Amino acid sequence: MISWLDRRAKRVEIPRPSTREARLSTTKVDIADLTPELLPYLGQAAYFELGMFENLAQTIRIAPDLYSKEGLSAAAGRALAKHQGLVAEIRRRGGEPSEVMAPFAPALDDFRAKTMGADWYELLLSCYLAGGLLDDFFIRLSDGLPGDVGPRVAHLLGQGAGTDVLVKHLKAAIGGNPGLGSHLALWGRRLVGDTLLVARSAIPAVAPTAGDPASVADHGEERIEPVFTELIAAHTRRMDGLGLTA
Amino acid sequence: MISWLDRRAKRVEIPRPSTREARLSTTKVDIADLTPELLPYLGQAAYFELGMFENLAQTIRIAPDLYSKEGLSAAAGRALAKHQGLVAEIRRRGGEPSEVMAPFAPALDDFRAKTMGADWYELLLSCYLAGGLLDDFFIRLSDGLPGDVGPRVAHLLGQGAGTDVLVKHLKAAIGGNPGLGSHLALWGRRLVGDTLLVARSAIPAVAPTAGDPASVADHGEERIEPVFTELIAAHTRRMDGLGLTA
Repeated sequence: MISWLDRRAKRVEIPRPSTREARLSTTKVDIADLTPELLPYLGQAAYFELGMFENLAQTIRIAPDLYSKEGLSAAAGRALAKHQGLVAEIRRRGGEPSEVMAPFAPALDDFRAKTMGADWYELLLSCYLAGGLLDDFFIRLSDGLPGDVGPRVAHLLGQGAGTDVLVKHLKAAIGGNPGLGSHLALWGRRLVGDTLLVARSAIPAVAPTAGDPASVADHGEERIEPVFTELIAAHTRRMDGLGLTA
Repeated sequence: MISWLDRRAKRVEIPRPSTREARLSTTKVDIADLTPELLPYLGQAAYFELGMFENLAQTIRIAPDLYSKEGLSAAAGRALAKHQGLVAEIRRRGGEPSEVMAPFAPALDDFRAKTMGADWYELLLSCYLAGGLLDDFFIRLSDGLPGDVGPRVAHLLGQGAGTDVLVKHLKAAIGGNPGLGSHLALWGRRLVGDTLLVARSAIPAVAPTAGDPASVADHGEERIEPVFTELIAAHTRRMDGLGLTA
């Protein structure tokens, strides 16, 4: 049992800084402990963004009208730009992107299949919530990357996600249909568990702190927890913003 | 019967300049006669590029491996950038993109459905041939646009289409499978007809030349023909390049 999964029902009240940057700069744990090696980090993030792009392309494909298609194309373009930026970082280090991404494909393909949803609204919500949480997560981990790649990746992933359009469509639909709102609230709560498992899989097994037997027992979970608490708080704000109970 | 459709079987031997720019600058007809009004032009081209993007996203979705997915994402990004550039031109003139594109959606959706193909290779070939022909066509028409929008649109559409990757996959598959080659040659010949019909639909009815009764009879087809001859020659070169008989 992964303990932080239980936290998701608890409303974590933390101050809400005005920008993502301000929030993410509050370092509560030594993130270097939690950051994977550079190439695996880039490979997982790049393949995640490719999947986000494919999901957004799918929202375009099944969009009910041309107006929605048009707006969503910008969001798909942002996800693609993130993917391409990460791929460029892999190439800069002599990596072959498809090889570096390959180890993460089975788990992320499975994640996409689980979170694809049954219709346009479920898929829009998946893109918004999973994309938001994992972008935040990869930005958070980037603090621990060597050299100047961390700030560059954080800048790339922190760029406006083009998700205003997702929020707009979801709000409009939920506002006119309370039944849809409670259905999507359930869907959002289900998504967060699967999404946090993807995040957890990115973190290498943490070495126990010397002389602290408790940390042996939990394999470093205590050092990971603050990160997940932040991620869940941001997720809750996204749900709140849509009028959904997290 | 549209006469230029019959030309496609005839190998048109024209000089092959080294760059697209050089080829397209050879103005053989007064293109201003053939160019539609600005907003409809932008709307049709923008919706075509959105469809190209959707087709390329589909090639990613059904790609047989991660290496192919990765390469195709760049091509999808180029199509999306063209769409977004055209949409920006529409907005700059106070147009609402979805409204400006809407009149062209039924015919272009129908075109996409007809040219989607039965498998990955047919779809790759559609993207390469139809994308190449209609990009060339919209660049050609842009000469007749008012103000400075023509050169800007030509530059946007003339940017490398990111289609090297399509050619690479098609060549590799055809080289190893002569049966696939003859199948795709047939598919390519079928595509050109449907693609030229899209081009034809963009050209407004041409006014007859004063004092030339023949031009009344053919509704200006003679003035359109040189443009289509160029487009078909370029199409033939693309087929040749793949080792397919046009």
